[in-house]
Amino acid sequence: MTDDTQRLSRQLGLKFNNPALLVNALTHRSASGTNNERLEFLGDGALNFIIASALYERKPECDEGSLSRLRANLVRGVTLSEIARDLKLGDYLNLGTGELKSGGFRRDSILADAVEAIIGAVYLDAGFAACQAFVLRLFKTRLDNLPEPEELVDPKTRLQEYLQGHQLPLPNYNTLQVSGKSHAQTFLVECAIPALGQRTEATASSRRKGEQAAARAMLDIVLSLSPKPIDSKGP
Amino acid sequence: MTDDTQRLSRQLGLKFNNPALLVNALTHRSASGTNNERLEFLGDGALNFIIASALYERKPECDEGSLSRLRANLVRGVTLSEIARDLKLGDYLNLGTGELKSGGFRRDSILADAVEAIIGAVYLDAGFAACQAFVLRLFKTRLDNLPEPEELVDPKTRLQEYLQGHQLPLPNYNTLQVSGKSHAQTFLVECAIPALGQRTEATASSRRKGEQAAARAMLDIVLSLSPKPIDSKGP
Repeated sequence: MTDDTQRLSRQLGLKFNNPALLVNALTHRSASGTNNERLEFLGDGALNFIIASALYERKPECDEGSLSRLRANLVRGVTLSEIARDLKLGDYLNLGTGELKSGGFRRDSILADAVEAIIGAVYLDAGFAACQAFVLRLFKTRLDNLPEPEELVDPKTRLQEYLQGHQLPLPNYNTLQVSGKSHAQTFLVECAIPALGQRTEATASSRRKGEQAAARAMLDIVLSLSPKPIDSKGP
Repeated sequence: MTDDTQRLSRQLGLKFNNPALLVNALTHRSASGTNNERLEFLGDGALNFIIASALYERKPECDEGSLSRLRANLVRGVTLSEIARDLKLGDYLNLGTGELKSGGFRRDSILADAVEAIIGAVYLDAGFAACQAFVLRLFKTRLDNLPEPEELVDPKTRLQEYLQGHQLPLPNYNTLQVSGKSHAQTFLVECAIPALGQRTEATASSRRKGEQAAARAMLDIVLSLSPKPIDSKGP
């Protein structure tokens, strides 16, 4: 084990019986045929289950839909790459020369995969209990500060559920304008509920994002309407 | 614990410290608000991880793509409902009066969910090692007789990968004829590679199934072609 991986082990609070597993977990496929992809597969499974179990225990009031949303939010790539950055994992990765220079999304995805691979390595090295303790340590702050499950529902779905729940008409989404060159387009999207006399607009880098932003604005409007919003007329 | 659940416990090779967990795992939401949906969420996570770990160990030669395919094949609903039928789990389910009569797909899905819920119950009742032993027992025959990972790739994908790998032109899929009434339509679908002078046809209950069947027939043809198939002309 090199000084580097020893330092990382200490920082992770781990003592590897087989340090080669940690080296393997840090090795991207661009650097070697013996890389972290199988460990990532294993670690992804361990992570999903350990987080499921933690949420089951901590959220007795949540149904399975809310538990699923909370889990998806915790184990998604963005969260994992944040954790990797906190651990300065990028300093320890073994990357091929091509990947060394890559930034942005590819880099985030490589970091997230390495977190999963380390989780897989801990499971192989020390068993389930040690792996569980490690994952709960990595996610402690996030598990102690869980969002409300409904915050994790996307605005279009929340708007639709609210309208259906109140016997209100559903919205239409229309793309009003697409501008910019093909690799950097901007979408002006409208969310309209003609029967309520309400419409909102949003501009975003994709149709989907524009619809979500317009739905969020519409949600604010319908939530602020009077108890009989079907009779109200918007501006 | 009723005689019924005692009998099922024995049959599953389990001794529950908290038998209420097994009763809960067998209770569909149509029967009670205290049902198996949260246990199913937990058991789904445990099952996915335990199978991932078993495959990692048994298939050192498989990359993560093959491991994922093997796992998906083992944990999908069809496999779980087969396991449930082997266990005669249907005899032990607590269903609401509406669901008692339902058959077919709904019934299969309820059975599959109950298998996952029982796995979750075993984890809560006896911990990870006991849960792992239980899952490995349930899946023993299937784990001892794993298919080749490439058998699990659908024919359209296999055909495309083969053609790309041999610098051959890709196929077109065309629906030649749709017949029958809307609830029982039949699709005649063609897979054509004009540059190879090859075409196949298949009839199926959906466009997608027809394309897959036509692709499978085309795969047989291209695999039997000479090493320079681009020059050959089909019948």
